[in-house]
Amino acid sequence: MARQGRRGQRKTRGAGRFKQPPWRRISNPYKPIEVLREEQVKQIHEASLTVLEDLGLEFLDDQALDILDKAGADVDHKTKLVRFDRGLITQSIATAPSQFTIHARNPARNIIMGGNHVNFSPVGSPPNCSDIDNGRRPGTYEDYCNFLRIAHSLNIIHIVSGYPVEPVDIAPAVRHLDAYYGYITLTDRAWHPYSLGHDRISDGIDMLCIARGIDREQLKSEPSLVSVINTNSPLRVDGPMLQGMMEMVRHGQPPVVTPFTLSGAMAPVTIAGALAQQNAEALAVIALTQMINPGCPVIYGGFTSNVDMKSGAPAFGTPEYSKAALAGGQLARRYNLPYRSSNVNAANLVDAQAAYESEMSIWAAVMGHANLVMHGTGWLEGGLTASFEKMIIDAEMLQMMAAFLEPIEVTDATLGIEAMADVGPGGHFFGTAHTLERYETAFYEPIVSDWRNFETWEEHGSQTATQRANGVWKQILEEYEPPPLDDDKDEALKDFIARRKRDGGAIAA
Amino acid sequence: MARQGRRGQRKTRGAGRFKQPPWRRISNPYKPIEVLREEQVKQIHEASLTVLEDLGLEFLDDQALDILDKAGADVDHKTKLVRFDRGLITQSIATAPSQFTIHARNPARNIIMGGNHVNFSPVGSPPNCSDIDNGRRPGTYEDYCNFLRIAHSLNIIHIVSGYPVEPVDIAPAVRHLDAYYGYITLTDRAWHPYSLGHDRISDGIDMLCIARGIDREQLKSEPSLVSVINTNSPLRVDGPMLQGMMEMVRHGQPPVVTPFTLSGAMAPVTIAGALAQQNAEALAVIALTQMINPGCPVIYGGFTSNVDMKSGAPAFGTPEYSKAALAGGQLARRYNLPYRSSNVNAANLVDAQAAYESEMSIWAAVMGHANLVMHGTGWLEGGLTASFEKMIIDAEMLQMMAAFLEPIEVTDATLGIEAMADVGPGGHFFGTAHTLERYETAFYEPIVSDWRNFETWEEHGSQTATQRANGVWKQILEEYEPPPLDDDKDEALKDFIARRKRDGGAIAA
Repeated sequence: MARQGRRGQRKTRGAGRFKQPPWRRISNPYKPIEVLREEQVKQIHEASLTVLEDLGLEFLDDQALDILDKAGADVDHKTKLVRFDRGLITQSIATAPSQFTIHARNPARNIIMGGNHVNFSPVGSPPNCSDIDNGRRPGTYEDYCNFLRIAHSLNIIHIVSGYPVEPVDIAPAVRHLDAYYGYITLTDRAWHPYSLGHDRISDGIDMLCIARGIDREQLKSEPSLVSVINTNSPLRVDGPMLQGMMEMVRHGQPPVVTPFTLSGAMAPVTIAGALAQQNAEALAVIALTQMINPGCPVIYGGFTSNVDMKSGAPAFGTPEYSKAALAGGQLARRYNLPYRSSNVNAANLVDAQAAYESEMSIWAAVMGHANLVMHGTGWLEGGLTASFEKMIIDAEMLQMMAAFLEPIEVTDATLGIEAMADVGPGGHFFGTAHTLERYETAFYEPIVSDWRNFETWEEHGSQTATQRANGVWKQILEEYEPPPLDDDKDEALKDFIARRKRDGGAIAA
Repeated sequence: MARQGRRGQRKTRGAGRFKQPPWRRISNPYKPIEVLREEQVKQIHEASLTVLEDLGLEFLDDQALDILDKAGADVDHKTKLVRFDRGLITQSIATAPSQFTIHARNPARNIIMGGNHVNFSPVGSPPNCSDIDNGRRPGTYEDYCNFLRIAHSLNIIHIVSGYPVEPVDIAPAVRHLDAYYGYITLTDRAWHPYSLGHDRISDGIDMLCIARGIDREQLKSEPSLVSVINTNSPLRVDGPMLQGMMEMVRHGQPPVVTPFTLSGAMAPVTIAGALAQQNAEALAVIALTQMINPGCPVIYGGFTSNVDMKSGAPAFGTPEYSKAALAGGQLARRYNLPYRSSNVNAANLVDAQAAYESEMSIWAAVMGHANLVMHGTGWLEGGLTASFEKMIIDAEMLQMMAAFLEPIEVTDATLGIEAMADVGPGGHFFGTAHTLERYETAFYEPIVSDWRNFETWEEHGSQTATQRANGVWKQILEEYEPPPLDDDKDEALKDFIARRKRDGGAIAA
């Protein structure tokens, strides 16, 4: 591990092992920010039902069409267009649970989706990766594994919801087998198989069952996998996504239904319109999950952003994005569904833009009460690149947000009137008993931020946050230890992978 | 102007004049984030009154002590310690107005303090400045003027609340005269004389009256200046601050009463304790303003942050800072007082840290319903340096926040069902009538953010946001035009300054 990179540059933050706050489940004690008034939420809700009733959605899979037909939707099997009575939508989605547990291989890493719970995951699916030593390049399996090692080592990561980088050096048909093996052996978190046809989900389920030592029956009552279902906006769901989704849902595993409604391109140029379309697409697919398996857990995903109208380039972490992310939370709560948002930006390197666009996303996700914040660490370039340094910078930003969500404790002891009396006018609190009892845990301790004065910082090499982050991820890789896995499970996984590779892997989707 | 810097590097954002959203008054339509429960606000309120009742505050000015004595406070003229009955505090502060207008030389730049109004100002008072061409250096009057030119040119700036950099090449006793002349001639916004003794405020009032063409009587009913009053935490207010404040208040000009309660150093190591102390100090000084001139406008300032407990270095934009800033808003609203917060960070250069710490401050300020967000643009290094590039990066972040505060418009037209019908499944919205009617103003257009794809960005020089910001501030200086000022007013100002310089300027404070 950690073969790339110059080891001599590590440990810029002083001797000793990498220090961070402990792993814990996070919940948001504050009220969500509401950017829509109650009647506006209703208007968007009604508009999306009108879209489903009058315009409909294309479902490019015959099996899905049969299920929709049987459930009472108005299906045109030739054009594959499906229209939904508004009552059918609201009745169908009502069976989806508002909260559920996702089981990890390490039960201490089980997490809760729903309510005020907040879970962070690393970036998913970029084709490229980068670090400041070697620059930008297509992802390899070695990069993939290193990102997973870092994700496993970061206590702010709750779940791995996608390949942190595509290991493009492995053939597409068998890539998922090695990738899932990486998830299982390098991390102890719950993970994400891809809904690109039936096989990649089915293989994921088999490998998950081996790793957890359970069978498919037990899995049905213990959600352990998530898989993103993107609609092909506008108003279309493609076949491989549907096939993967149906396999997930039959086994009680939660899809993360996420329309990619880029305002001005795949959705109306107005945020209200993009939200109405997002909501229509999400509700239709969520309705289908419940027609297949009533009560199956499912997550409402919002990913509405806008394009640069001059170039058509997608933008992220914009003001419009933040409003849409907060509005998405209001819509998900209207349906009592867990909500997924993201930490995204459109910067080409880890600079101030990357940070401020990310913060616009993070604040909106967290204060929109997103339960799953995808792409939490490492995302760059609108998702085209996973950055090793951004993994660390983002971890810092997410940890700060987690600390922000710890409520202020107000008691006679914390109000500290006695300490003020001790110190008196013009005094200093460093040495008082009140301080000495608390100073070690009083404040958030950063992993990247440098608070030394200018002169000291300059003496130590004038490093940017990104350069310091480079030292941090190398130290993490250096210190990385894989989570324990029984030898027999490891053997069984290897056997399964060998057999499936002999079979040719996933059938082309 | 714009003499430093290499002109050839400008205009990286393409030909044409600098583009930005128009100047406008901003208000926050969303509910504030509340990090304290109602009963916790009350606990902090009560604790701060107990501090004032039992411990008291030192007021290091005899005139102030006399006023406090006469108003019924328990004054020890020898130790200068003043204790306040809790009823005296609540009764005194009740006369302060909840909202008022601040008058600028250009009436189109008058702003409102209070309610949901948000006003941004540039950094105030750093001794150093920096840009990426010439690095960090002590501020000069030329730098000072250039910062003001940029501030005047940025439509997101509502008021100038302090020297954007100290012009340390001018002698302290007369520095304020040249500095105020810069405020008046280079910007059209309201501004900030310093409460460092009586004279600097009195000179500010005279120069303001000349510039606005009014007399001291008219000024009393038209607040036109703000001046920060920092307490000397813990529990002390120094003489020069009090002398300046009293001169402000006698003329109906709003002090911005801001305790500098750095948790773990000048305030308890607990955020609840630091807030209790902040509130005690603020309320005592605000009470004094109302004893001098009942009904005088005044702003409640919060500046509670924490130190790094390992080094004692001040930290800003931390999770604790954000919580304290939001809690400060809750306290100010309890007293129906306008609230001041800040955009701060502890980074030593304009990197990702500078941006994410700033965003933690900006979100807390804006969602805490701060009416005055000081240090809005340019602050670096915990306030020790004003950065030309940070001026621009911050302007981008503030503009994004302003755009975020524009509510989503939900109407039949914006819901866009017809556009979705036009486009149909799998289509594209670029060319539809719905898009063409709106695309020019649909989304926030950035001044620094680069959304081009990696290859195009690389071809154009792989610039960081900070490098692009360097081009932007140079272009702004190049295009700068001073606001008009009548020749006779300019003459009168010059005469006043010459006379006061002959007198020796401000008496040492």
